[in-house]
Amino acid sequence: MNVIDLRRDFHRYPELGFTEFRTASKVVEVLEGLGFYVLYGEDAIDSNSRRGVPTKRELDEAYARAIKCGANLEIIEKMKGGNTAVVGELKGKKEGPTVAFRFDMDALPIHESNDEDHYPHAEEFSSEFSGNMHACAHDGHTAMGLLLAERLADREFAGTLKLIFQPAEEGGRGGYAMSQKGIVDDVDFLFCSHLGLDLPLGEVHGGNSKFLASSKMKAYFYGVPSHAGGTPEKGRNALLGAATALLNIHAIPRFSGGTTRVNVGILEGGTAANIIASEASMVIDVRSDRAEIKDELEERVKSIVEHCALMHGLTSKIDIIGEATTIQPDLELVSVVLEEAKQIDGFTSFKEDCDISLGSEDASFLIKRVQDRGGKGTYMNIGSPLPAPHHHHKFDIDEAVLPLAVQLLVRIGKRMLT
Amino acid sequence: MNVIDLRRDFHRYPELGFTEFRTASKVVEVLEGLGFYVLYGEDAIDSNSRRGVPTKRELDEAYARAIKCGANLEIIEKMKGGNTAVVGELKGKKEGPTVAFRFDMDALPIHESNDEDHYPHAEEFSSEFSGNMHACAHDGHTAMGLLLAERLADREFAGTLKLIFQPAEEGGRGGYAMSQKGIVDDVDFLFCSHLGLDLPLGEVHGGNSKFLASSKMKAYFYGVPSHAGGTPEKGRNALLGAATALLNIHAIPRFSGGTTRVNVGILEGGTAANIIASEASMVIDVRSDRAEIKDELEERVKSIVEHCALMHGLTSKIDIIGEATTIQPDLELVSVVLEEAKQIDGFTSFKEDCDISLGSEDASFLIKRVQDRGGKGTYMNIGSPLPAPHHHHKFDIDEAVLPLAVQLLVRIGKRMLT
Amino acid sequence: MNVIDLRRDFHRYPELGFTEFRTASKVVEVLEGLGFYVLYGEDAIDSNSRRGVPTKRELDEAYARAIKCGANLEIIEKMKGGNTAVVGELKGKKEGPTVAFRFDMDALPIHESNDEDHYPHAEEFSSEFSGNMHACAHDGHTAMGLLLAERLADREFAGTLKLIFQPAEEGGRGGYAMSQKGIVDDVDFLFCSHLGLDLPLGEVHGGNSKFLASSKMKAYFYGVPSHAGGTPEKGRNALLGAATALLNIHAIPRFSGGTTRVNVGILEGGTAANIIASEASMVIDVRSDRAEIKDELEERVKSIVEHCALMHGLTSKIDIIGEATTIQPDLELVSVVLEEAKQIDGFTSFKEDCDISLGSEDASFLIKRVQDRGGKGTYMNIGSPLPAPHHHHKFDIDEAVLPLAVQLLVRIGKRMLT
Amino acid sequence: MNVIDLRRDFHRYPELGFTEFRTASKVVEVLEGLGFYVLYGEDAIDSNSRRGVPTKRELDEAYARAIKCGANLEIIEKMKGGNTAVVGELKGKKEGPTVAFRFDMDALPIHESNDEDHYPHAEEFSSEFSGNMHACAHDGHTAMGLLLAERLADREFAGTLKLIFQPAEEGGRGGYAMSQKGIVDDVDFLFCSHLGLDLPLGEVHGGNSKFLASSKMKAYFYGVPSHAGGTPEKGRNALLGAATALLNIHAIPRFSGGTTRVNVGILEGGTAANIIASEASMVIDVRSDRAEIKDELEERVKSIVEHCALMHGLTSKIDIIGEATTIQPDLELVSVVLEEAKQIDGFTSFKEDCDISLGSEDASFLIKRVQDRGGKGTYMNIGSPLPAPHHHHKFDIDEAVLPLAVQLLVRIGKRMLT
Repeated sequence: MNVIDLRRDFHRYPELGFTEFRTASKVVEVLEGLGFYVLYGEDAIDSNSRRGVPTKRELDEAYARAIKCGANLEIIEKMKGGNTAVVGELKGKKEGPTVAFRFDMDALPIHESNDEDHYPHAEEFSSEFSGNMHACAHDGHTAMGLLLAERLADREFAGTLKLIFQPAEEGGRGGYAMSQKGIVDDVDFLFCSHLGLDLPLGEVHGGNSKFLASSKMKAYFYGVPSHAGGTPEKGRNALLGAATALLNIHAIPRFSGGTTRVNVGILEGGTAANIIASEASMVIDVRSDRAEIKDELEERVKSIVEHCALMHGLTSKIDIIGEATTIQPDLELVSVVLEEAKQIDGFTSFKEDCDISLGSEDASFLIKRVQDRGGKGTYMNIGSPLPAPHHHHKFDIDEAVLPLAVQLLVRIGKRMLT
Repeated sequence: MNVIDLRRDFHRYPELGFTEFRTASKVVEVLEGLGFYVLYGEDAIDSNSRRGVPTKRELDEAYARAIKCGANLEIIEKMKGGNTAVVGELKGKKEGPTVAFRFDMDALPIHESNDEDHYPHAEEFSSEFSGNMHACAHDGHTAMGLLLAERLADREFAGTLKLIFQPAEEGGRGGYAMSQKGIVDDVDFLFCSHLGLDLPLGEVHGGNSKFLASSKMKAYFYGVPSHAGGTPEKGRNALLGAATALLNIHAIPRFSGGTTRVNVGILEGGTAANIIASEASMVIDVRSDRAEIKDELEERVKSIVEHCALMHGLTSKIDIIGEATTIQPDLELVSVVLEEAKQIDGFTSFKEDCDISLGSEDASFLIKRVQDRGGKGTYMNIGSPLPAPHHHHKFDIDEAVLPLAVQLLVRIGKRMLT
Repeated sequence: MNVIDLRRDFHRYPELGFTEFRTASKVVEVLEGLGFYVLYGEDAIDSNSRRGVPTKRELDEAYARAIKCGANLEIIEKMKGGNTAVVGELKGKKEGPTVAFRFDMDALPIHESNDEDHYPHAEEFSSEFSGNMHACAHDGHTAMGLLLAERLADREFAGTLKLIFQPAEEGGRGGYAMSQKGIVDDVDFLFCSHLGLDLPLGEVHGGNSKFLASSKMKAYFYGVPSHAGGTPEKGRNALLGAATALLNIHAIPRFSGGTTRVNVGILEGGTAANIIASEASMVIDVRSDRAEIKDELEERVKSIVEHCALMHGLTSKIDIIGEATTIQPDLELVSVVLEEAKQIDGFTSFKEDCDISLGSEDASFLIKRVQDRGGKGTYMNIGSPLPAPHHHHKFDIDEAVLPLAVQLLVRIGKRMLT
Repeated sequence: MNVIDLRRDFHRYPELGFTEFRTASKVVEVLEGLGFYVLYGEDAIDSNSRRGVPTKRELDEAYARAIKCGANLEIIEKMKGGNTAVVGELKGKKEGPTVAFRFDMDALPIHESNDEDHYPHAEEFSSEFSGNMHACAHDGHTAMGLLLAERLADREFAGTLKLIFQPAEEGGRGGYAMSQKGIVDDVDFLFCSHLGLDLPLGEVHGGNSKFLASSKMKAYFYGVPSHAGGTPEKGRNALLGAATALLNIHAIPRFSGGTTRVNVGILEGGTAANIIASEASMVIDVRSDRAEIKDELEERVKSIVEHCALMHGLTSKIDIIGEATTIQPDLELVSVVLEEAKQIDGFTSFKEDCDISLGSEDASFLIKRVQDRGGKGTYMNIGSPLPAPHHHHKFDIDEAVLPLAVQLLVRIGKRMLT
């Protein structure tokens, strides 16, 4: 296997969160081919804990498309409904710790550029799934994971290697559900990583403590329609409830103990000028650099939604559609990463942490689960310069980072599995 | 007794709702002097059902002032706490129906004009209680009631005459509490009346169906103070709750079945720029020409207040501080009023009902109580031209209406008590 | 021509407001065939005064569809862009007044029922344009208008007959624009009419004064997007402006001089949880039984929208997308209608006005234009029982009303054209 | 003079901002007695630039009270209207730089404790002006300033000593106005200081960069009253405008570039339940650790207030009633402070800056003015343990700090004036 070819293959077939049927099918095939014991479908993820699952129609269309593009029917049959998580396990020849690496597989709903200066287009591996695009390097992550599997497939190590291929990282939708399935409960050391960040090629951060805890929610208001001219008093106005909630959510106070962010990003409701709106919904994002503040923001949003509904005789519900927590990298693993990186030609700049907030990351739930059970974890950044920012339709990585990253993971694996 | 002298005496000593100690004391003395059986204090009103009772300090000051101005100590001792209602009963020499007349006694918090063209000032009977004024003719009403008592004191009638002197009509605060005491439960016919309305002298309306049901509420929001710069998240902001409630109360829908009115007339809260406000209150007025719509408006206000508080972690309470319902005059009594009026020189214009809304009137609760028990009631208007509107600091009635009105009530009493 | 056949033909091809290409083409053909002088396209309507014009795509699709279903290419070429109004004029053999009749032609965006008990379905003339339906009797109106044309085509009358076929009555979008074109400026008497209303067959109302003036508006708020986590202060939040406007529009006060209705029926804005929403729009409906109050409501809405935008650094615009005014039928014409109806077997119940509000009707602008120039107008109701209400997917009229209605219009025409 | 006696004298007669007639009179007398050239009244402050000036009545009462308590009539005559600033200047025997020290003189509207364990009470120097109290150590500051004057009165220095006695520091009301008068425009070095902060006795901070820029505003909304039952549409509802502004001010976004605080601390409006409120006001506080963000918050508040008024047909105005900016101490002066403190027995702990935010301080405007003209400034903290926090009714300082502080200022003065 060649990591660049693999990356280009995944790039060509970008699949949104929980529809990574083709991607996950490939992953399963490779891992099984290498002798891994592979869990997937509902064996790898707690289906009910998933956030923001696509509609049945979206799932079905992606499923059919995956089949056309080479997914293994027998495998994806078990992933129906979007349980596209994969966990591969390989026992070494000796006893030892369980060391896990986590990779995310999903793409974004972005139309990829077809400008001549966009490398994937010029090299003819740009997206064949119009409207979707790997614009956050998860194609590279998945490829790295498979190369790591290949390089350790000889089982010349002590302990157990666990490779976690996670769906639906974007929006914070899959990590929590994999953690809830217990798939990291036996893990002693967990390494997560991200490529890119517009860092210089050769720069590595052993940890990243700057992710914000976040929660994305969708709130629904249900009222009673009525003709606004004829009998306005018989309506129960969902838009009054929703508009009031929007204002009051934005008025949630600042917190002295940490940074906070609050936003109602979408509000929709009503059907006609002269009908009292009987349904409305809004999508809300709250964040903080402290997990407990994020939790309090979430509680305040829930209370506002509930009572804004009740005050107008409405019912309401609120779903968590995405979530992430903070990450506190274990310094021991941070050191391991940096020490191993220093052994590799091509890595030239080494930092323990990064300076800037990278948004949110739901590998945080996997790391937290490991740490809560006494294990250790970290999240490393492996730099690549970028022609355009993450999530941009001209995003791309410098493919030279891929073999470097594989080397780093292999070294970490071999060192820890002793 | 002379009705004009009496009216001027009451005009000189205007007492606000539930502080009519001197007025009520006079009424009790006169009625007892005429041989009436008189109930007063808690015997005449259900103390706990009163709305908008003044503060203890206000009550005490008015009490002390009343003593200085001639109130009978022994009598007002029983009225302490503001139970200033009086009911006088006189049995005729024969059996017969119970016929009641109701008069209101309270004044308004208005500084009476001392312009030369203001008749009470020119004639030197203007208010001696600075800041209070009889600007709604209740001085005349009370005087009429006592003259009626005198003219029927010979007991030359069949049945029972009942004279009801009500405190705190302004704001709708005393009528409900007297009705709750049961003082009209034995009444067969109840006549209520109002002077003035800027109708021509000599015009009488046998009934008045135009009063709006109304409810005045005071809502309180209780939160937690906190330094707005230091720890804003520790506060629970009463002003956020109150402002949200204000907007949503004003957004209560129109009703297809009747006229509605909604107003938050006062909002107050907070102590300093940099403190999260921990207390706020608002005063709310809802009205409708249909009592059941008024009730629904009241319920909607309560729900909005409760949930606007809860959404911000506040507690709340809401008090009814004034109330009135609608009046449906019984046509039989309307006819009686008009027939008797036609027998009196000076009455020249006769209508069954009036055209315009007069606001609200809490005699409505007494009439409703009588009607609910099978009796009949009406509310008559006895016209007087006015130099300035009701509740104006230059309001006055043409005193010529007073002897006419007394004649009318006496004729009605004699006719019904047969 | 047979009125029932014609009605069924129009029923089969229901076209939404400003897309009545096939319908209007038929009307032009018939009127020209009968010798009328026919104005259509921009000769019959002030294109720029139209409200709520469909998108170019909608217009183009409807245009193409009309061609397939028999529209006359040469005729509808002149109606491109949705100028689907038609006015036919016929001079009698003698001088005399100008007498106009107005008919509306548009259908509704409703899926017609295909239940067996739905008469148009059972008789096989239900809609062939899926999603559109004649659910307000305009198919009948148009058919009546053509029969009237035929019956008076012999020109045996004095004066000028003017037949107005209006597009886009639903939502109040076409009437104003025809009035602005001046097409009724020479009219002495204008008769408008509606079938149905669930009145008994045989009932006629000579006038209808109960329509509410109404205005439908669409408001747009334009801000600046920004990442809600990264740089919230750089955004200008369109949803904050829109939600604030929604609450304050609903808080517009009641009016003492007339009935009011205010509703924000639709609110939509934003693109993602973590993006400050840069665009939002809302659809608003205001109504009153007094045109000047409707105008003031409209002004208040505009002021609220403008300033809610400005307070958050947004721009805004507001379009009138539908409008109607009140109708005061001239009693002289009301009498004419009733007198003529009484001459026709089948009409059995006669009223000058109707009791209930029928919503809004933009023939009001045509009647007002005539009256403003010294002419007279009325709006008559011609009863038919209904299996389901107006705008319901099982709406239908009793076709027996059609020949009766034609007779009535013919008699009115002949009487007035003398 | 004894610094403790002086402090107790000032403590006994606490005067609120802009009413420090007695205090300032004493200061003038002492400074003039020592040979200083003294500016006061409108010579020392730009009267029109003052924020939150008391009412005429408050000024007059305080003025009369000051006379009774020993103020010099001739002096305070010049301070009428609350121009209670004093600046004393003393030229040394040689040429040299201008070195200024600033002291604040005002007290707080707090009822001082009369508990036995409250030292000023036990020692019988507690407030004689009921309701006012020196609860922020300004009594000590003023005393320190006079001792410094005495100790340098021999003019054995090079350059000019300038002593600034500022009124109305609380609420940020006097500092800006003194800076606008230009009284520090010739200053080369400006030293400001605060006692207390519950630091250990003996701790000194050479600078304090943690003050927040802040702005306190009072917003007024003016509408039109109307009877809420009779003619609600004729009112222009000031409370609707104010409540909408309150919500939207609280919804001002977080800023990525700095800490922000926003609070509406007081809202008041309306007169009666059934009157559309025609007046409302609110008091608003905004803060940031960056002056330019504070300015933007202020602009956003102004825009919200203006447009919330306009949307409901109201007028509005907004006054700045208090203001402070940030302080960036010059490291050169920070070093001077610490070096001199180290020479004094009793100072034992030395820091360049403090850790915590101390709220806001309007000496910031004086320091900024000096720095903008090329001079240098700092704000030092001189520690004293506290029995109760600043602004508490049992606040007190350990008087042992006073002679230490005087020594420090004297040393700084002598060092700089060379």
